[in-house]
Amino acid sequence: MTYCIGIRLKEGLVFCSDSRTNAGPDRVSTYGKLHRFSLPGERQLMLMTAGNLATSQAVVAQIERDLREDASFNVAKAQYVSDIADYIGKLGLNEQKKYASGGPGAGFNAEATYILGGQIKGQPTELYLVYPEGNHITVSEQYPFLQIGETKYGKPILDRIIRPDTDHETAMRCALVSMDSTMRSNATVGPPIELLYYAADTLADPAEYCRFEENDEYLVSLRRAWDDNIRRAFNDLPSLQAVFDRDL
Amino acid sequence: MTYCIGIRLKEGLVFCSDSRTNAGPDRVSTYGKLHRFSLPGERQLMLMTAGNLATSQAVVAQIERDLREDASFNVAKAQYVSDIADYIGKLGLNEQKKYASGGPGAGFNAEATYILGGQIKGQPTELYLVYPEGNHITVSEQYPFLQIGETKYGKPILDRIIRPDTDHETAMRCALVSMDSTMRSNATVGPPIELLYYAADTLADPAEYCRFEENDEYLVSLRRAWDDNIRRAFNDLPSLQAVFDRDL
Repeated sequence: MTYCIGIRLKEGLVFCSDSRTNAGPDRVSTYGKLHRFSLPGERQLMLMTAGNLATSQAVVAQIERDLREDASFNVAKAQYVSDIADYIGKLGLNEQKKYASGGPGAGFNAEATYILGGQIKGQPTELYLVYPEGNHITVSEQYPFLQIGETKYGKPILDRIIRPDTDHETAMRCALVSMDSTMRSNATVGPPIELLYYAADTLADPAEYCRFEENDEYLVSLRRAWDDNIRRAFNDLPSLQAVFDRDL
Repeated sequence: MTYCIGIRLKEGLVFCSDSRTNAGPDRVSTYGKLHRFSLPGERQLMLMTAGNLATSQAVVAQIERDLREDASFNVAKAQYVSDIADYIGKLGLNEQKKYASGGPGAGFNAEATYILGGQIKGQPTELYLVYPEGNHITVSEQYPFLQIGETKYGKPILDRIIRPDTDHETAMRCALVSMDSTMRSNATVGPPIELLYYAADTLADPAEYCRFEENDEYLVSLRRAWDDNIRRAFNDLPSLQAVFDRDL
């Protein structure tokens, strides 16, 4: 399993991904899930993937091949980020179709899902979630984030904290807390964690990039502080005793 | 959708359930999902259901019918709570089989899942999750809670707070917070919320029972306090700035 978060702030774009991949209990591997295509001064594109690793690797390989061979459409030529989202949707669908008849294993699923974000010169930043079916959605006004993979455990904290005018340090910290809650509740999401911030309208390489290994000093201190703070937050809640007295 | 939590503390058993049922977007109804079978001084049994409402209603109706007609096996005669878990598993499976060939609607799913807890005289308290397949599990030593329905959003707070020696007021408050996080992230889980505490070895009717409507004064104050406290807990976390300085 995987967990990736993309956030579209007024300030810029935040991306956070774990790196664990599992293909059955005895094969847990780590793979980078955060890919970047960069033409400094002209465009910056970030792509995260969840789902079938063969499909998502094939999609990334095809994107790179189309770029290298200067295909009629490629990420360097595209006019809009949304066109690139369409293109990734098509590549993913084509790749899945190759295996649609299924293999010997029951329950085979070649689906992959993507978060694509970035900016092309002269346009605003954009952020999309591309479905295995090939279509895509963007963020909502009020909740400007998208998630793929194991999304539910880490959603409540994003719902509470992330707004379009949140500053990027807060958003990145919130993404890490969301990732940590997910890792705690689901063993198939795990470090290293990659965290990247692209500052809007710079068209430059990421302003901030961090990579956290399992025992990273900051990650350990964040985890400990969050655990303590959540307990305190919980202990400070109004007691139910008044309700017991009322309802009995 | 539904969300129900069962907790087995040293002190006793806690049950919490929402009451929203949806059968398509234009048919959102509320139904009690918390059922109780009581023989004061002899046994106390609590049952919560999630999944197909027709199946779970049929199962509850059959339990009541077997009790009324004094069937060879019924909840009043059973020697062990685990035998009742087996019996509920069988009733559910029989009910699902009736409709296994499917109806005209695609994606029809008659599955239901159950949390059964209680105590029979001379035995400890017991708590089980009964799967649609008819088999069941009990709680683990370290994490003595079970969830059914929309379980993921509300799991992190239970993971952090609930232990076997947690007191029942804390556990009930934690169940409410878990329920509130779930309602916030998923519109198909909703009030009224039922919350019940059975004190171990009393074999008496519940020591504490509360029912919360949408705008219940305590629920509103809890929600507001949790929102404030979580923000404070989050704002007090160590800043990422040190990592930015380190990694760049």
